[in-house]
Amino acid sequence: MHDRRSLDSIFYPESIAVIGANKVPGTVPHDILVNILKSNFQGIVYPVSPKEKAIAGVKTYKYIVDIPDPVDLAVIVFPSSVTHMALEQCGEKGIQSVIIISAGFKEVGEAGIRREEQIKQIAKKYKISFIGPNCLGVINTDPLSNLNASFAREMPEEGSIGFISQSGALCTAVLDYAIPKHIGFSKFVSFGNKADITEIDLLYYFMEDDKTKVILVYLEEITDGRALMKAARDIISKSSKPILLLKSGRTSEGARAAASHTGSLAGSDVVCGAAMRQAGIIRCNTFEEMFNKAIALTYQPLPKNNRVAIITNAGGPGVLATDAAIKEGVQLAQFSEQTTELFRKSLPSTANIKNPVDVIGDARADRYNVALSGVLKDHNVDGALVILTPQSMTQIDRIAEEISLIASTNDKPVYASFMGEAEVASGINILQKRHIPHYTLPEFMSSAFAGSFRFYEQLKQSYVKPGIFRDVNKKEAGLILNNAIKNKRKYLPEEEAVRVLKAYGLPVPENGLAVSSSDAIRIAEKIGFPIVMKVVSDQIIHKSDPGGVRLNIKNRKEVEKAYQTIIRNVSKAVPDAEIKGIYIAKMAQKGEEVILGIKRDPSFGPVIMFGLGGIFVEVFRDISFRVAPLNNEEASSMIREIQAYPLLSGIRGKIKKDTGSIEECLLRLSQLAMDCPQIKELDINPLIVQEDKEGCTVADARIML
Amino acid sequence: MHDRRSLDSIFYPESIAVIGANKVPGTVPHDILVNILKSNFQGIVYPVSPKEKAIAGVKTYKYIVDIPDPVDLAVIVFPSSVTHMALEQCGEKGIQSVIIISAGFKEVGEAGIRREEQIKQIAKKYKISFIGPNCLGVINTDPLSNLNASFAREMPEEGSIGFISQSGALCTAVLDYAIPKHIGFSKFVSFGNKADITEIDLLYYFMEDDKTKVILVYLEEITDGRALMKAARDIISKSSKPILLLKSGRTSEGARAAASHTGSLAGSDVVCGAAMRQAGIIRCNTFEEMFNKAIALTYQPLPKNNRVAIITNAGGPGVLATDAAIKEGVQLAQFSEQTTELFRKSLPSTANIKNPVDVIGDARADRYNVALSGVLKDHNVDGALVILTPQSMTQIDRIAEEISLIASTNDKPVYASFMGEAEVASGINILQKRHIPHYTLPEFMSSAFAGSFRFYEQLKQSYVKPGIFRDVNKKEAGLILNNAIKNKRKYLPEEEAVRVLKAYGLPVPENGLAVSSSDAIRIAEKIGFPIVMKVVSDQIIHKSDPGGVRLNIKNRKEVEKAYQTIIRNVSKAVPDAEIKGIYIAKMAQKGEEVILGIKRDPSFGPVIMFGLGGIFVEVFRDISFRVAPLNNEEASSMIREIQAYPLLSGIRGKIKKDTGSIEECLLRLSQLAMDCPQIKELDINPLIVQEDKEGCTVADARIML
Repeated sequence: MHDRRSLDSIFYPESIAVIGANKVPGTVPHDILVNILKSNFQGIVYPVSPKEKAIAGVKTYKYIVDIPDPVDLAVIVFPSSVTHMALEQCGEKGIQSVIIISAGFKEVGEAGIRREEQIKQIAKKYKISFIGPNCLGVINTDPLSNLNASFAREMPEEGSIGFISQSGALCTAVLDYAIPKHIGFSKFVSFGNKADITEIDLLYYFMEDDKTKVILVYLEEITDGRALMKAARDIISKSSKPILLLKSGRTSEGARAAASHTGSLAGSDVVCGAAMRQAGIIRCNTFEEMFNKAIALTYQPLPKNNRVAIITNAGGPGVLATDAAIKEGVQLAQFSEQTTELFRKSLPSTANIKNPVDVIGDARADRYNVALSGVLKDHNVDGALVILTPQSMTQIDRIAEEISLIASTNDKPVYASFMGEAEVASGINILQKRHIPHYTLPEFMSSAFAGSFRFYEQLKQSYVKPGIFRDVNKKEAGLILNNAIKNKRKYLPEEEAVRVLKAYGLPVPENGLAVSSSDAIRIAEKIGFPIVMKVVSDQIIHKSDPGGVRLNIKNRKEVEKAYQTIIRNVSKAVPDAEIKGIYIAKMAQKGEEVILGIKRDPSFGPVIMFGLGGIFVEVFRDISFRVAPLNNEEASSMIREIQAYPLLSGIRGKIKKDTGSIEECLLRLSQLAMDCPQIKELDINPLIVQEDKEGCTVADARIML
Repeated sequence: MHDRRSLDSIFYPESIAVIGANKVPGTVPHDILVNILKSNFQGIVYPVSPKEKAIAGVKTYKYIVDIPDPVDLAVIVFPSSVTHMALEQCGEKGIQSVIIISAGFKEVGEAGIRREEQIKQIAKKYKISFIGPNCLGVINTDPLSNLNASFAREMPEEGSIGFISQSGALCTAVLDYAIPKHIGFSKFVSFGNKADITEIDLLYYFMEDDKTKVILVYLEEITDGRALMKAARDIISKSSKPILLLKSGRTSEGARAAASHTGSLAGSDVVCGAAMRQAGIIRCNTFEEMFNKAIALTYQPLPKNNRVAIITNAGGPGVLATDAAIKEGVQLAQFSEQTTELFRKSLPSTANIKNPVDVIGDARADRYNVALSGVLKDHNVDGALVILTPQSMTQIDRIAEEISLIASTNDKPVYASFMGEAEVASGINILQKRHIPHYTLPEFMSSAFAGSFRFYEQLKQSYVKPGIFRDVNKKEAGLILNNAIKNKRKYLPEEEAVRVLKAYGLPVPENGLAVSSSDAIRIAEKIGFPIVMKVVSDQIIHKSDPGGVRLNIKNRKEVEKAYQTIIRNVSKAVPDAEIKGIYIAKMAQKGEEVILGIKRDPSFGPVIMFGLGGIFVEVFRDISFRVAPLNNEEASSMIREIQAYPLLSGIRGKIKKDTGSIEECLLRLSQLAMDCPQIKELDINPLIVQEDKEGCTVADARIML
């Protein structure tokens, strides 16, 4: 982790060396220098060039060490082949913060990976913190700094959005999109290959940065998912700043494409989605959605409840906005008597005075004024969405002005959608300048409102650290697992898996391992009938396939018969299998079958899985995930979130199942997953759940190592 | 239905009377007249005004009948209170085509509904066809006419999109959106309350209109869903023109909002969606999606297969486009050896020469040229998506020109996404002028490609008319239903419902109605055990609730006991129920339970429903719908489309069920639904389905009248 100070030198340097600058306009080494100079930078710039005496009127130095004064920040724009030399010289000069723009590292394969390793070593030696390589650079709009150390064509307005991106080329598109819309940024960072400073460092920096209120992140690869989750939780709880994330590479083909240009390894997208929700990160599907949500969060107060008023001069778009609102869980406000009376008096008789309010096509600014002021005063309304279509008599600019004015004197959020393009352009410009979030479609406006309200709700919740069960036997579990690993085994069959589970307090039935039929009878009688019998062999993962399972065995005679049958079946089906014995366990009462599991995700580590048994997981993919460790709320919500939850909660004719006991199993499994990294994968399939308060039983389990 | 001729007079009039024109700029009656005059209209315009001598330099007439020449089309802009008088005069003058712009009809309630009725009567009397009332008017860009009989601020470019909209105000927003993007229209119609000419008439007109290649429809209310489906099928099969629909009022709140401004009654949105798919209509969720898909269909050839090549100068957006493509079912093309070799030679070593092709941030036009020409020549590629982000060295306009040139000499589709806004604006403008579909986000581009390919696939299918089962007894079914209706019954219990089903050849088990326990024994023995026994009463719809059902009865003794138990249970639970007897039927073998049903939708009439029994319908809402009558393909696809289909087709460990027999049941039910409008709702719940070729059995049924 990088401390605040080293990042401060990147965003607020008093002096910068641009190492490798040249005189050729249109090339990166030239444009970056000029960008710094023309952005009204508040410090001193020292170009470093082996060839030139001066660039853009500024004196250059041949070597970094030649610079007579101390240097806070170096920007390296040399080719990748000599970057290590430049960095070495930075170290010698005592420069501790560097931006490496140069490409040609990890992203180009073998040789590049070696080069990247080399610069990491040099940075370590000199305690240098650096951004990049392979990035666009850094922008800080704070007037204290006015830094544009990037090759972006233009500097954005000052604002309160902090933006960080793994892709450099995308940054130019984002700036080009944002600038004409007057979307301002506090800091704007392209961090490229993140060989040193990562998104995590930048997120923490933004947490403490007073200029940043809303944080936007574009990632192609989540290297350390847990660190990202922790950072998000810290930021939201300590600074109440929303974090919006766009993550590409969601399909396997997309992930492959991402890998081929960043060399990244993608985890499961479903797990990523669950983790983001757990951490309170707002995940977006497109850039447009990201900015649509960001401008609402940035420029308007959060709605305190979800009852929205829609005002429109065209019925159709009002309906579209309503449809979108309802789909997002937003309610249409029911106006008070007072508001209704006001509208009845002040709006024409043809107007629709109910929500959505239709002020009718020929509405001028006065009607919009009446409607907007009216709904905002209504205590049943938590925010207003204003739609305008350009009719020949519509006072577009005037209405934009009025909306801005009314919104500015109000503590409820107001968003607008002026539909069309050419005619409404100047009106939209007015709204954007006055920071009224504007949307090209009414549907986007409804969706942004929903997003802001969800964030408001989220701020009210505080993250509770997962508790710890004291009654577990970590040592016992570790012994079983380590022993298996020592013997190079990849798989623990049920007999051993249940011992691990039992050590963590999971409801394992009474059981034993029989190595003869008389042994089997003895164990069965000790346990009490009915019992189940299953083959135990490292070579047999799916025990039913070769006929290795017998259920509901009721007496001695059946035990004996089952024992012989299983041995015979298995010996025939898998002649090479080493049969360790027959696992005998108390048969669980009938109940609802659910599946619990542990998986390991390359980005997020141990993950807990939950679903209903059989077809629900296989056919409907009705599964929930959470990154371990779980707190009570997470365990409970992952049960409630599956589509089939009504089968557990008790719908018509069904009896409520003991979800409390499932919750405890999930929590114990989560602790096991955290304590025992030896477990690569664990399945309890099924866990049989009884009626409420009646508990549950592990009816089958296996562990992959 | 209106014939082509009456619509021809609307789009291609040789003379127009503008009735109610005035001299006040910014008002509808003035602006419409001026719009016609300034659009270079090819006919003669006659303003009619009781007050003015001339308007905008054109001589006016006091009364319509004063016009000395014949008039093809009248545009009425008088207030609604006098519209009927104007229309009467049109009739007297012999004008047979009219556009009624005036608002204040059905949409304003009681008085308006009466006014609308009145003008419909007058139109009928004089055989007048009219568009409106309550609309924006009509635009025809065909140079033969050059008609802008609307109060839209601007006339769009000539093009091949035919656009019709129920909402007038929305039209202005659409034009304002389309005009700067050079999206051209053939005809543009706001048809308002559709009191006479409806979307169906206009659709058929567009079918025959050579200028129209792609049809866009915005509706708030589908009045006659079947006519819409028929029109769509006719148009697609006869003219291969795609139809895109945006329908608002999808949620019940949205539908209420729509109702309050058009007085429309909405059917189920799910049924609407199913009907659109059946008819081949491309349903869109937003205007943006509609135009995104429309420009691809309009301006570029259809892809002949779904293997797409993506070209980009920034990795991130390439990944986003890939993700979106995969999600939409599009494949990333695998380049041929030749293409790969070409790229290896001609692109820099840092470029990614696999798909998505990354020509790298510093790419100029030459690299785009190599990449785009290369992929289009590759026989493994069916279309190309080109992404550009504005880097400082990017030749934006030049690249736009090259893309346009290459695309124009190629028969594979090429779309582009130049990301950003300000810097890329002129490049985008070049693309739009040259009719290269342009998308603000790469994701939209992928989605549009998928849409075009789906339409290509659809054109290859031809609609097969549903067959008819000859072995049905329509008379018998009609008798039972009519008899019940005559007796004012609302509900047919199982005993009668199965008789109706049997008449239509559905697999009803052997059964009988017992009115005494000895009767019951006799019937049971005739049928053969095991049997089921259920109470029959018009007052009891859910027979299980009062204990009115006994299953799996195996002998005489059990029959007697069950008979007494049912009578006792029901008499106690529902003392007022008139018990008609006990229904006795052969108990079906165990099997997979499915639900079949008939519903009636206010827009689409009889609809057939299918789903798996129990929780699948209740919890997962895993249901498919089709508008009756069904053809074989529709019956088969509605079974395959549910999520739980693998349970019927036989997944791991499950045996394939007799889906052929379900298909036949659906087809027979469809015929029953069409033949017997008396049936308001019918449920077969469950139909028990056996293994493949083993048939199925109706295990319970009821009919609502």
